[in-house]
Amino acid sequence: MADSELGERVGRRARGGGGAARRAERTAVKVEFSRFITRNIPDMEILNEEALELIEHNAETVLEEIGVNFVENPEALERWREAGASIEGERVRIPRGLARKLCATAPSQFTQHARNPERNVEIGGRNLVIAPVYGPPFVRDSQGGRRYATIEDFRNFVKLGYMSKWVHHSGGTVCEPTDVAVNKRHFDMLHAHMTLSDKPYMGSVTEPSRAADSVEMSKILFGDEFVDQNTVMTSLININSPLTFDSTMMGALEVYAKANQACIISPFIVGGAMAPVSVAGTLTQVLAEVLAGVAYSQLIRPGAPVIFGAFVTSIDMNSGAPTFGTPEASLITLGAGQLARRLNLPYRSAGGFTGSKLPDAQAAYETANTLNNGLYAGVNFMLHGCGWLEGGLVSSYEKFVMDADQLGILHSLAKGVDISENGQAMDAIREVGPGGHYLGCAHTQANFKDAFWRTKLLDYRPFETWEEQGAPDTMALATKRVEKMLGEYQQPAMDPSVAEALAAYVARKKAEVPDAFL
Amino acid sequence: MADSELGERVGRRARGGGGAARRAERTAVKVEFSRFITRNIPDMEILNEEALELIEHNAETVLEEIGVNFVENPEALERWREAGASIEGERVRIPRGLARKLCATAPSQFTQHARNPERNVEIGGRNLVIAPVYGPPFVRDSQGGRRYATIEDFRNFVKLGYMSKWVHHSGGTVCEPTDVAVNKRHFDMLHAHMTLSDKPYMGSVTEPSRAADSVEMSKILFGDEFVDQNTVMTSLININSPLTFDSTMMGALEVYAKANQACIISPFIVGGAMAPVSVAGTLTQVLAEVLAGVAYSQLIRPGAPVIFGAFVTSIDMNSGAPTFGTPEASLITLGAGQLARRLNLPYRSAGGFTGSKLPDAQAAYETANTLNNGLYAGVNFMLHGCGWLEGGLVSSYEKFVMDADQLGILHSLAKGVDISENGQAMDAIREVGPGGHYLGCAHTQANFKDAFWRTKLLDYRPFETWEEQGAPDTMALATKRVEKMLGEYQQPAMDPSVAEALAAYVARKKAEVPDAFL
Repeated sequence: MADSELGERVGRRARGGGGAARRAERTAVKVEFSRFITRNIPDMEILNEEALELIEHNAETVLEEIGVNFVENPEALERWREAGASIEGERVRIPRGLARKLCATAPSQFTQHARNPERNVEIGGRNLVIAPVYGPPFVRDSQGGRRYATIEDFRNFVKLGYMSKWVHHSGGTVCEPTDVAVNKRHFDMLHAHMTLSDKPYMGSVTEPSRAADSVEMSKILFGDEFVDQNTVMTSLININSPLTFDSTMMGALEVYAKANQACIISPFIVGGAMAPVSVAGTLTQVLAEVLAGVAYSQLIRPGAPVIFGAFVTSIDMNSGAPTFGTPEASLITLGAGQLARRLNLPYRSAGGFTGSKLPDAQAAYETANTLNNGLYAGVNFMLHGCGWLEGGLVSSYEKFVMDADQLGILHSLAKGVDISENGQAMDAIREVGPGGHYLGCAHTQANFKDAFWRTKLLDYRPFETWEEQGAPDTMALATKRVEKMLGEYQQPAMDPSVAEALAAYVARKKAEVPDAFL
Repeated sequence: MADSELGERVGRRARGGGGAARRAERTAVKVEFSRFITRNIPDMEILNEEALELIEHNAETVLEEIGVNFVENPEALERWREAGASIEGERVRIPRGLARKLCATAPSQFTQHARNPERNVEIGGRNLVIAPVYGPPFVRDSQGGRRYATIEDFRNFVKLGYMSKWVHHSGGTVCEPTDVAVNKRHFDMLHAHMTLSDKPYMGSVTEPSRAADSVEMSKILFGDEFVDQNTVMTSLININSPLTFDSTMMGALEVYAKANQACIISPFIVGGAMAPVSVAGTLTQVLAEVLAGVAYSQLIRPGAPVIFGAFVTSIDMNSGAPTFGTPEASLITLGAGQLARRLNLPYRSAGGFTGSKLPDAQAAYETANTLNNGLYAGVNFMLHGCGWLEGGLVSSYEKFVMDADQLGILHSLAKGVDISENGQAMDAIREVGPGGHYLGCAHTQANFKDAFWRTKLLDYRPFETWEEQGAPDTMALATKRVEKMLGEYQQPAMDPSVAEALAAYVARKKAEVPDAFL
């Protein structure tokens, strides 16, 4: 498990200097931050009314005739029975219309609070909130190659997310800190999100008790009363597709829903394996699963905030490998968005998906295909927005900053077209006239600074200059940017008593039980 | 001007063996070919009715009050005067509504014939026809690096286009054959398209006489009468933005329109330099320019087939470099599509654009951004669909096959969602049930072969296998694919008398005048 030179170098730089020195520096570097996206453009609607009604009808048929399994969860079965479902073993068959009716109490939009109120996000409606990669056991960078992720990597990714202008959310398991015991990781991960960033974050879902710990730590950060009355976490509850709800994930959902904390209820589908090979069939199953999952959340607590999730990829029928950025996945992402809006639920899908082993052209094609379709699908919460590599096995330092740069494009696209008098620019066209140029005209002078999205990464130098300066590819540029961002990172200020209380809680809880690595 | 090893190697392989040997081989390798795209999904409409009317109103104001210049073209001025425009020097001011009225005779869709009728394309309506990169003076590949393009490179790119399943059109100047005299290049280029491919092609526009030569050569290929009665070329007429129509391009347009051959009438805009820095302002200028250009084509010959073009990029305000795959360019591409459809004209825009010097992640992000938005913009003719690198200075061998692979994705996306009984897959969901998997179910068995788009390039191998086999990045995979495609290339059959007549015409015309390199 070799540590990355890059990670170490920037780690040292970030750790260098005491608290006083850091505070003095703090005013020097301004952390840029963009508000979440609010779309001023329409959604791409690929399903017509007939198709939508057919899929909705079929999903209800699935729930009624086939049903879903709630595994090792007798209380869930009892809740379903009371709600009017028919129970047979662990199978729950839900009469046509019941799940949809139960879903109606879920809010169409909710605020997730951050410890810095300027970083609060509104999830739902015309908004798009973007969070980084979630879940990989490995990391990769240009110096250290591919290796198991550590808590140091985890902290670096939280810092990168904090420093990334177009990333609105600190996320959750930005990588798996494999050097920390499985039963204690969530403490260190949450502690990193809470202290190294001031953006909103996700809670642990790997055990119901860890979800409860997440709520406890949030109460230290925000105060008991605030957490009782507000949503401060959005956590990822995967459905075990097809049509199966396991007790671990449902247990975490129960904890969060009871505490009025938000959950993404997300079918996890590799099309062809966990769902039919057809788009309409997959959409039917996705809708059935989400209807059942969201309905269950509302049985726990009517009004609990939930998100209609759809993690969808397809399978390579030659090798069995999952594939990303494919047209079938895009169609499902677009179609599921329509289904979510008809349920008045916030929608989670898309991300910077790729199956590539390297942050190369394949990675970028697949990622851009997914990001563009995610925007047009009306996604409200985009997990894996940056840093995802190798089908989710790897969090990539370089791809994190590459993708994070591209996310700026979604912000500008979503703004749509300014048709104000300034936007129309008729004065400029008059001033310049046939055969002229606009570089120096008054309208250009007044507008050029904000007229175009600007990259912080990509290379626009002329060939000769670029070649003289080493002919760097995107990977090399990204390595430099990672170093720069981690080097410039400064921890956001925090009330010292809260910081102490958090540290003490983590230390105490970690000391209570022995390490477990399974 | 070092030749590429790759180019030479595959050149030798392609040249190896006589005609008889090649004919014998011909049956062995099947060249895959896909019909042009017909969209079964809606367009992305980012402008509402108010915005559209405003831009249309402003464009008419530009034509009426500012006007356009027809440079060194007294006959054009006379045509405009007769049509009712006001002429002052070279300035043509067009009364409100006149240009739009003149545009009404242009067809909303037309057939461009190929010598192989199976390769005919329908340009307009819900269709999307894709052609390769156009214009670069340089080529690049992994072995030979960046160097001036030669006629050997040109022929290789024509062969790659012919071998690319998702490329419908052989294009035009796939690279500039700089080793051939400027005044004779068009003969060799057309000869290559006509003999090495059987897909439709573009004519020369660099001199009116070269446009006439293109018509002559097409008559040898198709027969005089056929060319008189049908469109067999679509050629690229750039407008010298802002608002300027030069006599070279207009001269070529005149030749083609008189011969009923199609032209793309295309503003060439680097936003901030040749158009205002705002999207609405640029759309206004694009519309004014296209209205004037298309109207002029209809003054030459009412009913002449033309395409509403929009080549749009923005400028990096720091360096002055053109930028690609940006959100502003995407918005313009989407908006111009709406304007074109309201004029009932076929629409040309987008392509595999990038400013990157290498076929790296930057190139792929920028390209995918452009391709996806091109599809959703309702583009009917996509030039530069594959192979474009470094802002159009370079035709890249590797990027050609990378992009050409991605174009398959557009085909699948455009199909939309199959909601037939088979598409709904309810039997599969019933068969598999909760907790099962779909890999072996009857529906998967019946559908898996065609269910998902399949790459011929990208890597889906597991990490360990991929690493053992050399850990190739996309560039390395693409180098192999170029070799394979050029190695397997076989010339499509042609009537020997036509082949002789074409060769004789080219030889005679090239001998008539001395070489000129300016």
